[in-house]
Amino acid sequence: MEGKHQLMIPGPTPVPEKVLLAMAQHPIGHRSKPYSKLQAEVTADLNWLHQTQHNVQMLTVSGTGAMEAGMINFLKKGDRVLAGCNGKFGDRWAEVGEAYGLQVERVTAEWGKPLDPEQFREKLEADTEKQIKAVILTHSETSTGVLNDLETINKHVKAHGEALIIVDAVTSLGAYPIPIDQWGLDVVASGSQKGYMIPPGLGFIAVSPRAWEAYKTADLPRYYLDLGKYRKATEKDSSPFTPPVNLVFGLHAALGMMKAEGLDNIFARHARLRDATRAGMKALNLPLLAPDSHGSTAVTAVSPLNVEAEKIRSTMRQKFDIALAGGQNELKGKIFRVGHLGFVSDRDILTAMGALEATLIELGYEGATSGAGVAAASKVFAQG
Amino acid sequence: MEGKHQLMIPGPTPVPEKVLLAMAQHPIGHRSKPYSKLQAEVTADLNWLHQTQHNVQMLTVSGTGAMEAGMINFLKKGDRVLAGCNGKFGDRWAEVGEAYGLQVERVTAEWGKPLDPEQFREKLEADTEKQIKAVILTHSETSTGVLNDLETINKHVKAHGEALIIVDAVTSLGAYPIPIDQWGLDVVASGSQKGYMIPPGLGFIAVSPRAWEAYKTADLPRYYLDLGKYRKATEKDSSPFTPPVNLVFGLHAALGMMKAEGLDNIFARHARLRDATRAGMKALNLPLLAPDSHGSTAVTAVSPLNVEAEKIRSTMRQKFDIALAGGQNELKGKIFRVGHLGFVSDRDILTAMGALEATLIELGYEGATSGAGVAAASKVFAQG
Repeated sequence: MEGKHQLMIPGPTPVPEKVLLAMAQHPIGHRSKPYSKLQAEVTADLNWLHQTQHNVQMLTVSGTGAMEAGMINFLKKGDRVLAGCNGKFGDRWAEVGEAYGLQVERVTAEWGKPLDPEQFREKLEADTEKQIKAVILTHSETSTGVLNDLETINKHVKAHGEALIIVDAVTSLGAYPIPIDQWGLDVVASGSQKGYMIPPGLGFIAVSPRAWEAYKTADLPRYYLDLGKYRKATEKDSSPFTPPVNLVFGLHAALGMMKAEGLDNIFARHARLRDATRAGMKALNLPLLAPDSHGSTAVTAVSPLNVEAEKIRSTMRQKFDIALAGGQNELKGKIFRVGHLGFVSDRDILTAMGALEATLIELGYEGATSGAGVAAASKVFAQG
Repeated sequence: MEGKHQLMIPGPTPVPEKVLLAMAQHPIGHRSKPYSKLQAEVTADLNWLHQTQHNVQMLTVSGTGAMEAGMINFLKKGDRVLAGCNGKFGDRWAEVGEAYGLQVERVTAEWGKPLDPEQFREKLEADTEKQIKAVILTHSETSTGVLNDLETINKHVKAHGEALIIVDAVTSLGAYPIPIDQWGLDVVASGSQKGYMIPPGLGFIAVSPRAWEAYKTADLPRYYLDLGKYRKATEKDSSPFTPPVNLVFGLHAALGMMKAEGLDNIFARHARLRDATRAGMKALNLPLLAPDSHGSTAVTAVSPLNVEAEKIRSTMRQKFDIALAGGQNELKGKIFRVGHLGFVSDRDILTAMGALEATLIELGYEGATSGAGVAAASKVFAQG
């Protein structure tokens, strides 16, 4: 039905009407006083959301551009880095590093399994000459719904003492607690079309004082992605290049909504959405790709047993106007993914679960009982 | 007066209501069939606007990001390039080249004066060993309102036979005829917040088959700005990284309006807006920075004689809610700039001229007669 589209993919995520209307305002000049005021407020709110006292930088890029900037500004050609690879995005950051001539050592796990912090510990402890300059890591692996154990891996990086930790938090920022200053995370990159509740087009990068120290001697070529230019401008409530003014209007509105909800409530909501989604899937005999111990609060990947994943997706889309994501690369056709981050409420999960039940019944999925998914999700919501 | 803001800066430019409302639609998934259809239509329309048969690439970047991509994808470290420098943006491209280790030779002219095509001819003719790999050029220099003679310089580049021509058309694309295929331009970069009539956030790059040949051996590091990734995706009506879906909605609407107006009418309108603006300024005893022979159809820079430029700007803003741009770098405080590109009509110029007259009278500007600016502009409009 036209206009009834419901996005349940891990980005772009649903956008509140207030944000859409803010974006529909006529742009203003980006070298004007009203823009400076907007930039100052947005920076303060971004710092709040990132739980950091150091200005978060905002770039006109997708998440990949943000993560690339987060890598190339703090390293030197030939630097040895460890890259955690257990999905499409982890693999991508290893590729980015190689494109810039870094010596990338992959720490791998099967897609759908979490990275093993012990592997990082061993490599870091063995590096007594401190040649590992960075550990690059995807926190919530969007392609598999695995939440890697950032906190533990970070502890091993801290014990090493020399390496920076560079985090792809594209789908975890705003969906899971990442106390950047408290944990001493060096670089944390994310994108607007995820937990931020606004459309794609903005990338964000939090940078620690230690990383800014490394910036001084970094030598990989860059200009548009040179974070030093952004840092200087942000300090003056400005932007080095023309910012996407209308998206910034939207961001301002979205951050206002997030502040009104409060960080703890936002994180509790995302945990609840994950738990309800996982409970519902299990009740419908739909195996989950990621283990319970490492389920992302942003996205849940499901491996259906006796009906093709793509058939489930297309029925959900055609009959109920619900968009689910498919599998990527080696998981193509094998899984479907439910996004539950950003502007998503308990009600949305019940809606998706109801539609999924109807879809499974129609497709003759074995082991699914009508009502079981909604019931299991409801039970999670009843618990709080 | 709140909500009465009139943008007359060279970007962001005014945005039609139709475009703003298109952008306020809820985003769709970028891996969906509806997005593929949108991407296909937008690509076809961009090719039309660029007068090229080769797919224009679209990136989530500002104009600087687009121009950087246009340079780094087609050159090798140490390559000798000529960079035309007669304003802030020409200077910037020389800096970008140096950041990537290119051997940049500046061909300069005073800010406010056009580049001299003869200087390019001499250097290119002297290069019998064909070591010059590219000529990098800003077509419409936004900082000064000078329109460089791209057509003649390009002829000298073509006579050289080896060098690529890489054009910053950020404020000229859509405001002045640039028949890319006919002239054999290799790389033409532009940004959304200019002639495209949409807010900032998208960059565009047209690439010739010759430039794609050079791409094969180019060796400057890149990933997010790697145009080969965009080329592959565009061929499949897709995007390598998440596109700013809502801006693409706006772009689709704006390109539809441009097609309805027609290329010839668009270019004639911009020429008329420039001519009327220049005539009005002269009638008000306001000297123009760029010579008549090289006046940009996108922006006109004015050097007031006996009242400070910033005083004129602030009065225009405070009393009449009209935003003019100031001078940049060495021209700071010395000029003001009137943007007249994109969604700007004859009426807007009369409006600005009337407000400017009132401002000059209030500030006691010597040599300005009330009515003279509007009269001179009207005369241009009466001629067609």
